[in-house]
Amino acid sequence: MNCQQKYVHYKSLVDHCLERFITQQKPRSLYEPLRYVLAGGGKRIRPVLLLLSCEAVGGKARLAVQAAVGIEILHNFTLVHDDIMDNAGSRRGKSTVHTKWDTNVAILVGDELLALAYRALLQTKSPNIQEIAKVFTEGVVEVCEGQAYDNEFETRTNVTVHDYLCMIEKKTAKMVAVSAEIGALIGNGTRASIVALRRYGQHVGRAFQIQDDLLDIVAEEKEFGKAVGGDLVEGKKTFLLLEALRRARGSDRALLRDVVKNNGGSRRLIPEYRRIYQETGVLDAARCRIEQDIAQAKAELHRFPSSDARAMLVWFADMLLNRTY
Amino acid sequence: MNCQQKYVHYKSLVDHCLERFITQQKPRSLYEPLRYVLAGGGKRIRPVLLLLSCEAVGGKARLAVQAAVGIEILHNFTLVHDDIMDNAGSRRGKSTVHTKWDTNVAILVGDELLALAYRALLQTKSPNIQEIAKVFTEGVVEVCEGQAYDNEFETRTNVTVHDYLCMIEKKTAKMVAVSAEIGALIGNGTRASIVALRRYGQHVGRAFQIQDDLLDIVAEEKEFGKAVGGDLVEGKKTFLLLEALRRARGSDRALLRDVVKNNGGSRRLIPEYRRIYQETGVLDAARCRIEQDIAQAKAELHRFPSSDARAMLVWFADMLLNRTY
Repeated sequence: MNCQQKYVHYKSLVDHCLERFITQQKPRSLYEPLRYVLAGGGKRIRPVLLLLSCEAVGGKARLAVQAAVGIEILHNFTLVHDDIMDNAGSRRGKSTVHTKWDTNVAILVGDELLALAYRALLQTKSPNIQEIAKVFTEGVVEVCEGQAYDNEFETRTNVTVHDYLCMIEKKTAKMVAVSAEIGALIGNGTRASIVALRRYGQHVGRAFQIQDDLLDIVAEEKEFGKAVGGDLVEGKKTFLLLEALRRARGSDRALLRDVVKNNGGSRRLIPEYRRIYQETGVLDAARCRIEQDIAQAKAELHRFPSSDARAMLVWFADMLLNRTY
Repeated sequence: MNCQQKYVHYKSLVDHCLERFITQQKPRSLYEPLRYVLAGGGKRIRPVLLLLSCEAVGGKARLAVQAAVGIEILHNFTLVHDDIMDNAGSRRGKSTVHTKWDTNVAILVGDELLALAYRALLQTKSPNIQEIAKVFTEGVVEVCEGQAYDNEFETRTNVTVHDYLCMIEKKTAKMVAVSAEIGALIGNGTRASIVALRRYGQHVGRAFQIQDDLLDIVAEEKEFGKAVGGDLVEGKKTFLLLEALRRARGSDRALLRDVVKNNGGSRRLIPEYRRIYQETGVLDAARCRIEQDIAQAKAELHRFPSSDARAMLVWFADMLLNRTY
């Protein structure tokens, strides 16, 4: 099996357990939308990373599957509640819970997902279970804090690139780092290897988010699966927009200021925004940051003995770097 | 100290720890409303019960304080999200989070409270920590299920007394039972004493909820702190309304059917509703159920050696029975 095939294998392991994890039917208003969310697909990046991290320190992936399922359920909790807050109508090509059902259902489904995430995690058999649960919990706290900053940024006009990087550290990178750390804890890794894998996850998570921002403007619409430039139309203060605001001058700068001032830009101006991004060099700056983070992530792996799992983690970082959707 | 004074002592212990538990200030949009919620008061029934249960099995309350704080934070999580779903404008005489701030803030504050509840709980030092966290998690799952049933009941016209009792079992009684069970687990109680205290909590929790329904119609407005008959005006399907629907005949029954059909009754008809409740005997039926549950709760305590904590648990059950607000 090559790495891509192995990834598919780990992913299907997670999907299989996830499917069998929710057996209850009633109350229907809770479990029907809940099942709908979990069956909605996704790349399953976090749980696969957890399994690989467990193996990288010499542990058995089999013992980490329940925690992996917990991490994935937790991720889906954040999506359901974030979609309410962002007023998002669809995700992964399907209606969001609060549009298909209503906001009350979506609030409760999110709450239940968070509880079920703990239920899955707590099935893990490990002498480190208390620390594992603590690491998981600190991840949830930071995700909430990150989301709060993200909400605050919507109405603030003075957000800096630094503010943005702190926000994605909490909202995105932390939970990826937590996935790697928990995998290493379940695998009974040494302190040093646990820290190394946490850092690996942090770099990969950060790169992943900036790549997300980048793809929004440079992706091929067909592959991307949604309209390009959506972040600009929504006025989202991404790395690209904030860095371009810092660099642009004259009428170009005025155009970007308008996006911030009006809480969103015009769809027909997207080619113009893209030209400004190109000319101010922020696309290259983003690519550079991503490459740097991926390189730093891979550097954390040097301490590990050569193994299939380590090779997979190298491939995993590169895959996120090269993804086109 | 008499029991009332001791209760105040335990309560202030919880309040003190709760206050010191949240030290963070930023993001302000998260921690300001969060502090507002936790400072909002409340009877602190669940955390005090947890401390008493720990002592009843011979444990030290000091070792259970963090879990008690966790239980109280969890309770506040349910209040913040329930208030959004119920569209409640005020609680304990103060504006609810989603009215003072907005729904997005309230969703996120609730999520963070749930995470902080786990953070507090997981500070507990106990060889039983995995089981404690599992019991806690099953409590959260059932609270969500109970709330889902409660939401479903709003649009259903065929809810039975049995449905209602199953709902409050999950929405209210379970978390009171969990509080007692976790206290006993931290105190390293025997299996039999853990089960007994869980049952005690379950009975007390059920009685507490029916007492709540009863007070809504029989309380003295001055003491109660809010308008009497609110449940009927809102069309809430309480034990009283459902049991009265089963018992009433003729025009009385038609009047109650209207409350269900119109999703709420008229405030000026409250004396009429009260008369029907009186004449159908549902007020007595409720009192009888409460007394039965309180008696069963106290019967669970017989196995415990006489102690201050046991005496407190007896007093605690009676206090809930005799409360007027």
